Amino acid sequence: MSSYTRSHSSQQSYAPSAPSLPESYNQQDHAYNSFPPPPSDDRRRQQHQPPPSYAAGYGQGEYSYGYSGFPPGTHPDVIRSFQMVDRDRSGYIDENELQQALSSGYQRFHIRTIRLLMFLFKNPYDPLRIGPKEFAALWSCLGQWRAIFERYDKDRSGKIDLFELRDALYGIGYAIPPSVLKVLISKYDDGSGRKIELNFDSFVECGMILKGLTEKFKQKDSRYTGTATFNYDEFMSTVIPFLVSYD
Amino acid sequence: MSSYTRSHSSQQSYAPSAPSLPESYNQQDHAYNSFPPPPSDDRRRQQHQPPPSYAAGYGQGEYSYGYSGFPPGTHPDVIRSFQMVDRDRSGYIDENELQQALSSGYQRFHIRTIRLLMFLFKNPYDPLRIGPKEFAALWSCLGQWRAIFERYDKDRSGKIDLFELRDALYGIGYAIPPSVLKVLISKYDDGSGRKIELNFDSFVECGMILKGLTEKFKQKDSRYTGTATFNYDEFMSTVIPFLVSYD
Repeated sequence: MSSYTRSHSSQQSYAPSAPSLPESYNQQDHAYNSFPPPPSDDRRRQQHQPPPSYAAGYGQGEYSYGYSGFPPGTHPDVIRSFQMVDRDRSGYIDENELQQALSSGYQRFHIRTIRLLMFLFKNPYDPLRIGPKEFAALWSCLGQWRAIFERYDKDRSGKIDLFELRDALYGIGYAIPPSVLKVLISKYDDGSGRKIELNFDSFVECGMILKGLTEKFKQKDSRYTGTATFNYDEFMSTVIPFLVSYD
Repeated sequence: MSSYTRSHSSQQSYAPSAPSLPESYNQQDHAYNSFPPPPSDDRRRQQHQPPPSYAAGYGQGEYSYGYSGFPPGTHPDVIRSFQMVDRDRSGYIDENELQQALSSGYQRFHIRTIRLLMFLFKNPYDPLRIGPKEFAALWSCLGQWRAIFERYDKDRSGKIDLFELRDALYGIGYAIPPSVLKVLISKYDDGSGRKIELNFDSFVECGMILKGLTEKFKQKDSRYTGTATFNYDEFMSTVIPFLVSYD
């Protein structure tokens, strides 16, 4: 476990500003995947069964699809969702196909969220498309985030407010400073004066932005000083990929 | 003039990575306003007359509107555009009203660009609305950017490509490293394989992002070392406002 984790008391210089990250999405094996699953909550799970993810010993060898790029143990439903949209059997899907594939297991995500997911889980050889390995990792990650969302959506409204978001992020290891959270959530303010609430789509977007940017900061703070130094190129090249995905 | 300007040879540690900025939008008087106008190109101007901006000695005292928040010399057309959308005469307009007001003088900008402009020209007392002073500064700035866009749109296609964008940014004082430019413009790639080109709306968006982020970097590099150090809160709070404006 990373020394950035919230519970690691020896890194005081980071607390309470620094978040803790379970894993780095930059690791070669897309470690989002091995993100520790949330504690079980059987009652909630029965109501909102997350889509299948890496179920050990389940579906192994069931590569009914024409190629075997999926990690061993990938649930057949995940493979089928991929197969359903990869009509040309190229082994890669683009952002629109990903949007469609996720609709079958989760919901229809905003194309902006899809692009952020594509960026974070990107295939290094083709940034505009993802393959089976990336798709499986992404699907699994979303299942874990779905379970977290449902656990912290205490009133089961399908939406979480600022405090539930803070708790949800804290619960999965991110000690986000209130000032940062306030800036982030203000982006969802529609000016109506109503309380700002996030649906699952926006929760994923928020969470992925926080995780991604934090990871970038962490990479530049290799000595755990609580500060990161960038030259101009690094700063711009780090930040710009997180900016709006244009359409 | 700032020592960050491209032509200032004594700040070698910044070249070629560091851009040069004519002014800071963070200055109290919204210095975008005093951005030096581009060299004249009468032929082009006749074809594409930019909307009126701060014309010295023009319109002074012509506050036909019910309040006098506009700087002296604001062109009456600018005041009228504001007045047209501020139907409740509150003296402030929101993002939808801004979109509508700019449509009369420029074009209909994407709501994303509008939100970025709102953020950069924001009224410190009400981040969701802007007043006469901010509106006049924004209008003037857009006029200057329009003239720049037209000068570098050499084939008059109404769009500029990567090289024209690079030249346009360089021409106004931003020496953007090719790597940064590549990352930025890739966000406009629709995957069709066609050459990426930006219309004026996207040009403004790109330019404002680059200007805004560069200004933030510059604030953290007060000693002109070519590097900037952020703590985690600062980094996140700096970057997040530039992220997508949610809808």
